[in-house]
Amino acid sequence: MNRKELISNIKKKRSFLCVGLDTDLKKIPEHLLDKEDPVFEFNKSIISATIDYTVAYKPNIAFYEAMGVQGWISLQKTIDYLEPYRNEVFLIADAKRGDIGNTSAQYAKTFFDKKISGFDFNAVTVAPYMGEDSVSPFLAHQNKWVVLLALTSNKGAADFQYLQLAGENKKFLFQQVLETSSKWGTSDNMMFVVGATQAEMLREVRKIVPDHFLLVPGVGAQGGSLQQVAEYGMNADCSLLVNASRSILYASAEKDFDTKAREEAKKLKEEMAQYLADYSKI
Amino acid sequence: MNRKELISNIKKKRSFLCVGLDTDLKKIPEHLLDKEDPVFEFNKSIISATIDYTVAYKPNIAFYEAMGVQGWISLQKTIDYLEPYRNEVFLIADAKRGDIGNTSAQYAKTFFDKKISGFDFNAVTVAPYMGEDSVSPFLAHQNKWVVLLALTSNKGAADFQYLQLAGENKKFLFQQVLETSSKWGTSDNMMFVVGATQAEMLREVRKIVPDHFLLVPGVGAQGGSLQQVAEYGMNADCSLLVNASRSILYASAEKDFDTKAREEAKKLKEEMAQYLADYSKI
Repeated sequence: MNRKELISNIKKKRSFLCVGLDTDLKKIPEHLLDKEDPVFEFNKSIISATIDYTVAYKPNIAFYEAMGVQGWISLQKTIDYLEPYRNEVFLIADAKRGDIGNTSAQYAKTFFDKKISGFDFNAVTVAPYMGEDSVSPFLAHQNKWVVLLALTSNKGAADFQYLQLAGENKKFLFQQVLETSSKWGTSDNMMFVVGATQAEMLREVRKIVPDHFLLVPGVGAQGGSLQQVAEYGMNADCSLLVNASRSILYASAEKDFDTKAREEAKKLKEEMAQYLADYSKI
Repeated sequence: MNRKELISNIKKKRSFLCVGLDTDLKKIPEHLLDKEDPVFEFNKSIISATIDYTVAYKPNIAFYEAMGVQGWISLQKTIDYLEPYRNEVFLIADAKRGDIGNTSAQYAKTFFDKKISGFDFNAVTVAPYMGEDSVSPFLAHQNKWVVLLALTSNKGAADFQYLQLAGENKKFLFQQVLETSSKWGTSDNMMFVVGATQAEMLREVRKIVPDHFLLVPGVGAQGGSLQQVAEYGMNADCSLLVNASRSILYASAEKDFDTKAREEAKKLKEEMAQYLADYSKI
């Protein structure tokens, strides 16, 4: 999916919601645990319940690989299940990968090269610390995206991302990461992670990358404000994907979990439709 | 395996060699491709050929996950095959993971919690960008290690790791990463990645972390000098693991690949024994 198609989906659905599939056996409703593949059963229900209101899904790879081989099988079934919807939803592997060039090339195969690994996500999240040659192997895949960590939503973001650099401007490290890395690709194949818990910083981020899509986690369970994210982060094309995971997936731990998840997603969608009217031109 | 046991293995074997298992179907000898699980067959032969000269193995997780479910099965079989040798070799999952706390906790299960994932590596490599709460869930596992990226061996290391920070000392980012993160754990549960291609920087690294083990990639195919690594990086307890991958694994692409791998490992071991005598007290 290219940038134009993604924007068109946002326009049609009046939503820039990404549903994070952080599926945790300890949190899903008990009645699913008797099924042959509870993780897949849960994901299937969540997808069916939310697809009208979402433009992206983001499986959090940690939750699958922690279950060993079975986890990867559940992930594969989830992605296969989404096959008929590939024109309307953007798929992000939230994997935070990144290594020297020949190794990043392998990670890119994992998430992009269906013939080899079975997966063909649209995008993968990548960590910036190892620099350009750790990112470029992902960008070498046509029509695929890198979502690079810039400013994250956790407390530890303060440890390094907010370090001030030498030089007159006393830039923060995350600002330099945005400046440098935005030259590695284009707004057609790179996005940046900017946490909603740092919403006021979105204004600074937009000074450096006015056009790029931003993937914004931290709304919901982590406490970020959707209104602020839209106000400070949205541009004329929207160019935002706002992720919610726990607040949708675990809205209920009972048999009505899918109905409750749908209600949660719908609520966010309706708020988003308003912000699209207020702050974008689509 | 704790620090004392690791040092004792180095002392016994007169080697601080770590063999990186970056097993690539495109590079292994052709005659193995007919086997049911060529990756496992290759790893088994490499392990048998090198175990006398090595104190650690480091599967590069990218190469396994790029093969989808089959890759994780091959990795599992490789780790199971190493079971009888667990007292003499330290196992590092080279995965470069790291995410917000609840997600890093899942990655920690992937590599440390055998009951859940099937794996119980001794250590996992972690990227520092997301700060303390992205690392601490790994450290919460008793007797397990984090190997944190500090200064890597690739060209892209220059992009951010060498950024100078504001303040009188004009520290490089990687120096601040070492200073800050070394307080998150101890020299009994944290190591740092410092690339051999930056050997002269090992002197600076040792000023900040005199006691910690350093995992040093980049000797061999990437061109780093083992002698310089030992001279600048070794302390009285050695506290170095030097990784070689391609130069050992692919020493030959013919049927004699295991003999050639053994010769390569032996050559490195003999050089290492000399440096242990020259620069350490063990």
